[in-house]
Amino acid sequence: MKKESKEGLTVKKEENFSEWYTQIVQKAELADLRYNVKGFIIFQPWSVLSMEKMFDYLETCLQKKGHKPYWFPSLIPEKNLKKESSHIKGFTPEVFWVTTHGKDEPIEEKLALRPTSETAFYQMFSLWIRSYNDLPFKTYQRANIFRYETKATRPFLRSREFHWIETHCAHASENDALKQVYEDMETTKEVLHDIYGLPFIFFERPLWDKFPGAERTFAADVLSPDGRLVQQPSTHLIKQTFAKAFDVKFKDKDGKEKYVYLTCYGPAISRIFASVISIHGDDKGLRFPWEIAPLQVMIVPIDKDTKIKQKAEALKKQIQKFASVEIDYSEKRPGEKFNYWEMKGIPIRVDIGIRDLNNKKITIFRRDLDKKEIVNETDVIKKIESISKEITKNLTAKADKLFQNKIKDVKNVKEIKEVIKNEGIARAEFCSVDKDGEKCAETIEKETGAEIRGTRLDEKQKPHGKCAVCGKKANHIVYIARAY
Amino acid sequence: MKKESKEGLTVKKEENFSEWYTQIVQKAELADLRYNVKGFIIFQPWSVLSMEKMFDYLETCLQKKGHKPYWFPSLIPEKNLKKESSHIKGFTPEVFWVTTHGKDEPIEEKLALRPTSETAFYQMFSLWIRSYNDLPFKTYQRANIFRYETKATRPFLRSREFHWIETHCAHASENDALKQVYEDMETTKEVLHDIYGLPFIFFERPLWDKFPGAERTFAADVLSPDGRLVQQPSTHLIKQTFAKAFDVKFKDKDGKEKYVYLTCYGPAISRIFASVISIHGDDKGLRFPWEIAPLQVMIVPIDKDTKIKQKAEALKKQIQKFASVEIDYSEKRPGEKFNYWEMKGIPIRVDIGIRDLNNKKITIFRRDLDKKEIVNETDVIKKIESISKEITKNLTAKADKLFQNKIKDVKNVKEIKEVIKNEGIARAEFCSVDKDGEKCAETIEKETGAEIRGTRLDEKQKPHGKCAVCGKKANHIVYIARAY
Repeated sequence: MKKESKEGLTVKKEENFSEWYTQIVQKAELADLRYNVKGFIIFQPWSVLSMEKMFDYLETCLQKKGHKPYWFPSLIPEKNLKKESSHIKGFTPEVFWVTTHGKDEPIEEKLALRPTSETAFYQMFSLWIRSYNDLPFKTYQRANIFRYETKATRPFLRSREFHWIETHCAHASENDALKQVYEDMETTKEVLHDIYGLPFIFFERPLWDKFPGAERTFAADVLSPDGRLVQQPSTHLIKQTFAKAFDVKFKDKDGKEKYVYLTCYGPAISRIFASVISIHGDDKGLRFPWEIAPLQVMIVPIDKDTKIKQKAEALKKQIQKFASVEIDYSEKRPGEKFNYWEMKGIPIRVDIGIRDLNNKKITIFRRDLDKKEIVNETDVIKKIESISKEITKNLTAKADKLFQNKIKDVKNVKEIKEVIKNEGIARAEFCSVDKDGEKCAETIEKETGAEIRGTRLDEKQKPHGKCAVCGKKANHIVYIARAY
Repeated sequence: MKKESKEGLTVKKEENFSEWYTQIVQKAELADLRYNVKGFIIFQPWSVLSMEKMFDYLETCLQKKGHKPYWFPSLIPEKNLKKESSHIKGFTPEVFWVTTHGKDEPIEEKLALRPTSETAFYQMFSLWIRSYNDLPFKTYQRANIFRYETKATRPFLRSREFHWIETHCAHASENDALKQVYEDMETTKEVLHDIYGLPFIFFERPLWDKFPGAERTFAADVLSPDGRLVQQPSTHLIKQTFAKAFDVKFKDKDGKEKYVYLTCYGPAISRIFASVISIHGDDKGLRFPWEIAPLQVMIVPIDKDTKIKQKAEALKKQIQKFASVEIDYSEKRPGEKFNYWEMKGIPIRVDIGIRDLNNKKITIFRRDLDKKEIVNETDVIKKIESISKEITKNLTAKADKLFQNKIKDVKNVKEIKEVIKNEGIARAEFCSVDKDGEKCAETIEKETGAEIRGTRLDEKQKPHGKCAVCGKKANHIVYIARAY
């Protein structure tokens, strides 16, 4: 038994979240951090299988909403990045540059490993878009992205190469562009919340916290169990300067040439996977929502016996009609197998022992509730089917509760401090999320270590009192939290 | 009518294959070549949707055979590439180097954009593999690959960034490694032939035409309609020098430490797509095998009529239970729609006209046979289902015939010349595919412009006579053709 506990997690999630996360990434074999380029990691099969499913659900949702898939080159000429000044300024520090080939021969021009692809897409938009009939022009691509991060890297959450979907769209009016932002919020709900089981708040970021080159930036913040917020997909209303810089125009119904309005949305699957680990995992290991589990059902023969093997194989045949399933024939003891598959987060385990089987019984273990149930062997398939439909709902409902007690209304900096200290999210009335409020925001950050995440897009909340920092008339209700 | 024909292909495939290919890539909207980095192209939705399906079938097949998916970094340190001398020598001319970040600050060490990933995987194999129990260790990754090609680029067939699957496996013995080569040949048959509909010959390449770092190289050659061969997936028995350079050892059953035997297999989906275009396309445009069609069924309402619209929507609902389907409500005339979807290669089109419908009839057009059939409206779904099962088989059977009359037995260089001139493949008895035969191979290349593609792996053919070039005793039967 000692060996088993040594292989499990040695810290509790509630007591030391950071160490818990580090251990689970290693012990559930999600990523290997020993690759010999700083900031780059190897994604192992157990995370890749899940992330591939995450990609599938997201891409299917985007395609249904009219986005068409592209594969753009990974390399973007420096001159493209330079076309919009705030963009190059914002991204330059993070760019990896390709400068030579072969035996140190210089290439024609400096090429960026894409840190994001607006400037690649927009130059093509100017060739592809002609008339209002072409709008909205909705694209996406699945891509690997490179950023020379200077912040500490952390597996899945932040590394120098990551895997995402980026959508790039052109619209005929600012209003259409804003509608796209709402549609992106809906996509976030349908996929990140309803399938990955992640609760989020969709914020509009304050002016000083925008994407380099955006007029307005919105983002879904997911909670981390240590009270911090994690920025997951962000969506941007791009500055008109971009459409002008890349000359993306269309002939409108009135016959006039106009510049398009651009939006983009960037769900980073490998980063979102960090939230899947954090939100659903427990002290025994991972817990996967049914739809994105690398493997959905594991059958564990408890004893070596022909009858058990036959039963296991027969069940596997039936289960694989509606779920992915394997049989664990390894030489480990049953207890070791249980611990291993609980660490791996398999949603349903089917244990077949000889004593049970002689009584025509089989044990079903469900990871969402950590509960065993002994059922008649004739009911096994029906039971698995019904549990499979509950798992994601259960995990999501549990996750939704995380936000409930976290948000506290506060009136002043002292109260903000108190809430942040207790790993909460402070909701405060605030003077301004435009330039005027930047000083108050700095005060908050200095005093509490937390930052203003923005105003909610989904609820139009109205302030009635005064700014929690400067005491001037409040114009917004903002959320304050520590963030990754 | 003139406008339509202008939008169609203006050359016949048989008369000018090269121009036909150029036109179809553009007119079917498969790739845009106007990206502003030399040798890089943009893959457009119509090709991406198909290639995503191609990836799915291949990955499913590999997973069934026990390969586990990884995502490795795109960047490989120069020192990894240098560890095996023939490898660095072979790949250096093609490598793009990342040398700086941010404002031209140097990075710690020169990093290659992966031209292939053996040297990234093998250094991890040395950490992951311990005992014979770990073998065979079978991996794969879906990745984008970068090569500074100096040969002329051609969309899909050869560009400086492409999209592939690479498998990397470690085995306990040379015999196990060779078994893997046969399994790779089987995978090529199951996926490239049976699903993509591409006929191929699986060769072992002559010694002088090996992968840089391979002991033996095998490759599936697919025919291009102009008589040339296109190397599609190749598979390699890697030199033991690699296992030694990266210290990939295992403890064998006999307790002894031994070096593993390595194999790799690299189906380049974007390149294979070039063969899908070339082999199946005709003078009207693309033709897709059912399984990898970007869209499988298109419903075309011939007249504007409520009854037709209702029928179209009702059919769509039924069809989408087993196939992807859309309705073309665009403002184009029916003839234009027909031409457009034939160019796009949609396997089945359903035309609904008012006169037909009043007679309870509907027209089904199948692209594989270019044939229209008028059926009772009650039989439409059954008919579509039955046609859908025939399409890939028909296209594959047609493609298989391409090889039949191409291969001609020859006795001397003059006959080789004649066969090559007529766009055929010459089969000849040959002195040696090892070093001894290189001179004869050079003679063939100089005299005919064709090259020795190797010996067949799937048929053990025995020579009885003399080398077609030097007249010495023949030890092999080789195939000679022009190649891309």
